Amino acid sequence: MAGPLTVGVVAETAPGERRVALVPKLAARLIGRGLRVVVEPGAGRKAGLPDELFTAVGAELGAESSCGDAADSRRSDIVLTVTPPSEEDIARLPAGTVLIGFLDPLGDPARVEALERAGITALAVESIPRVSRAQAMDALSSQANVSGYRAALLAAQLSPRFFPMLTTAAGTVPPATVLVLGAGVAGLQALATAKRLGARATGYDVRPEVAEQVRSVGAQWLDLGIEAIGDGGYARELTDDERAQQQRRLTEAIAGFDVVITTALVPGRTAPTLVTAEAVRGMRPASVVVDLAGATGGNCELTEPGENVDVGGVTISSPLNLPAGMPLHASELYARNLVELIELLVDSEGRFAIDPADEIVAGACVAGLPEEVA
Amino acid sequence: MAGPLTVGVVAETAPGERRVALVPKLAARLIGRGLRVVVEPGAGRKAGLPDELFTAVGAELGAESSCGDAADSRRSDIVLTVTPPSEEDIARLPAGTVLIGFLDPLGDPARVEALERAGITALAVESIPRVSRAQAMDALSSQANVSGYRAALLAAQLSPRFFPMLTTAAGTVPPATVLVLGAGVAGLQALATAKRLGARATGYDVRPEVAEQVRSVGAQWLDLGIEAIGDGGYARELTDDERAQQQRRLTEAIAGFDVVITTALVPGRTAPTLVTAEAVRGMRPASVVVDLAGATGGNCELTEPGENVDVGGVTISSPLNLPAGMPLHASELYARNLVELIELLVDSEGRFAIDPADEIVAGACVAGLPEEVA
Repeated sequence: MAGPLTVGVVAETAPGERRVALVPKLAARLIGRGLRVVVEPGAGRKAGLPDELFTAVGAELGAESSCGDAADSRRSDIVLTVTPPSEEDIARLPAGTVLIGFLDPLGDPARVEALERAGITALAVESIPRVSRAQAMDALSSQANVSGYRAALLAAQLSPRFFPMLTTAAGTVPPATVLVLGAGVAGLQALATAKRLGARATGYDVRPEVAEQVRSVGAQWLDLGIEAIGDGGYARELTDDERAQQQRRLTEAIAGFDVVITTALVPGRTAPTLVTAEAVRGMRPASVVVDLAGATGGNCELTEPGENVDVGGVTISSPLNLPAGMPLHASELYARNLVELIELLVDSEGRFAIDPADEIVAGACVAGLPEEVA
Repeated sequence: MAGPLTVGVVAETAPGERRVALVPKLAARLIGRGLRVVVEPGAGRKAGLPDELFTAVGAELGAESSCGDAADSRRSDIVLTVTPPSEEDIARLPAGTVLIGFLDPLGDPARVEALERAGITALAVESIPRVSRAQAMDALSSQANVSGYRAALLAAQLSPRFFPMLTTAAGTVPPATVLVLGAGVAGLQALATAKRLGARATGYDVRPEVAEQVRSVGAQWLDLGIEAIGDGGYARELTDDERAQQQRRLTEAIAGFDVVITTALVPGRTAPTLVTAEAVRGMRPASVVVDLAGATGGNCELTEPGENVDVGGVTISSPLNLPAGMPLHASELYARNLVELIELLVDSEGRFAIDPADEIVAGACVAGLPEEVA
């Protein structure tokens, strides 16, 4: 009989990445279910989680690499990662490994093909279907929560204004006005955070049914009179006419705000332009744009991905990995998502029990037929 | 008859300084009172206030320097500055100029002597007495409000944790715990901002009478059982025994917090040590200390002024000029303070009417007898 399944935790190597795919208290939960947990040395260090915290709950430290490296006696059956594996990483994974993490299947199909060729069963958290059973596994949402919160903090830090109204003996400073474009999880969290800080927050989305959610966090709804509802809760792409009309009205509206935070993403597609160069020119000096869509081209026409630029006194900031800036809680939320998914894959004895017909498994699995694992 | 008094606005040259001593809408107020306002070109640029906004309200742009330079025909009777003038700046000021700004009279008495020798009437905003008539001129308070707000934002940005409690489908993240040491204007604003962001905020001060103010912003009061009330609303220095007892109890308390923000300043003195090296060692990894007292040695023993340092996973940040990071509103609040003071110095014809017996004038004036001006 084989021993219990081993779960390996990768030390992330992507530049600027500070998250880790498992945290000690969730390692303890897996160990409590009879699994072994092997953590690559230093994997949690940048998240404020030194190795001792992992070994204290019974996790082991990998000798060299726990990422399924054949040279490591403790090669893992399940490998957890935050960022997608490089070609080298994939070459080191033995066939039959179950890999779970952000794998960017729509953005980088070549990687998925490489995983398929290597005989890896790859479960992409991006591909978990948005069904209620899978809510606790929704890593896109958990990390979007972090992004939205950090985006509002970043905007407050970049703005030369107070977000809250301030009353002093010499008079009153009015609250900052913040417009958030895109009212998904990140947008709603950005609205809620700006509102908490005391700003006047306003939300906009092409899906009119989210107006109620925008209002529920205390923000106002910006009604431009254009609707575009698509599949899976995402916005569909607008027609050319709709887009032109939207941009004209948005450009007018944007001029009235001190801060604009954009969060409009269409999976696997270039981000829609919502803030044109003309709109930026219409903003007052000392205004701020924070664009969360920089990795897929940006929602602002003048965004330079990963940079802060000054255009006529308007600061345009394009942070590329906001969750990495808050690695402890971002990792904890992510690890909860992964552990929920792992618990769907193993039985009470700590052995694989993968149901390839399960819609969550079938949806998440972007390479390697689950039938081969079961 | 002489023409109306001229108020000159300096373009700040201190490294990192982005504030300006007057903003357009308050320039308009002075002009409305019959004064001329001359702004050094570019003075407001880094605060998001281009020259056009000043000229639009009737201010003039200085030909070379409006800082009283004798070579400038538009030499000013009253010169407004944010940061203290350099030796060179002082050499360029004609005798008889009234200089108003942060002049650091306690920290740099040599500068005050140089101003005296140069025949400048120097009004230091730090020396304005804390009487109710002078509340609207209280630049220390207005800038401390900015510092406290920015300190809480900085702490939130440095912390790898959410400040608010977050409830997700995969579970709940508890709110961050924030301890603010020193409950003056900056401390209270830091508490209020941390609380707004959703953290559990706790305040401490050696003056027990501020407990009520701490509670009024929604924070808890940390009672260590040590009191030290001094003159002018500042804390007196503690005795050695009191200090030892305070540090022991504080060190124990600090270990329980995710974030510590220190704001304990004693004017003209080295800042008291409140967070010892031992206390930092007692904090959990991924904790954060933001020390606002870095310019006078720091409240944390391991502070390196102007730097972010990592000590065993604890980040210690010592920002030196937080108001400069929010230059638009910091400048606006500061300008209101200065305009209130100027209005005390001029009559309804826009001419000097300085009453040397006025307690505000007498207190603020650190060089140059006002009798000579009147």
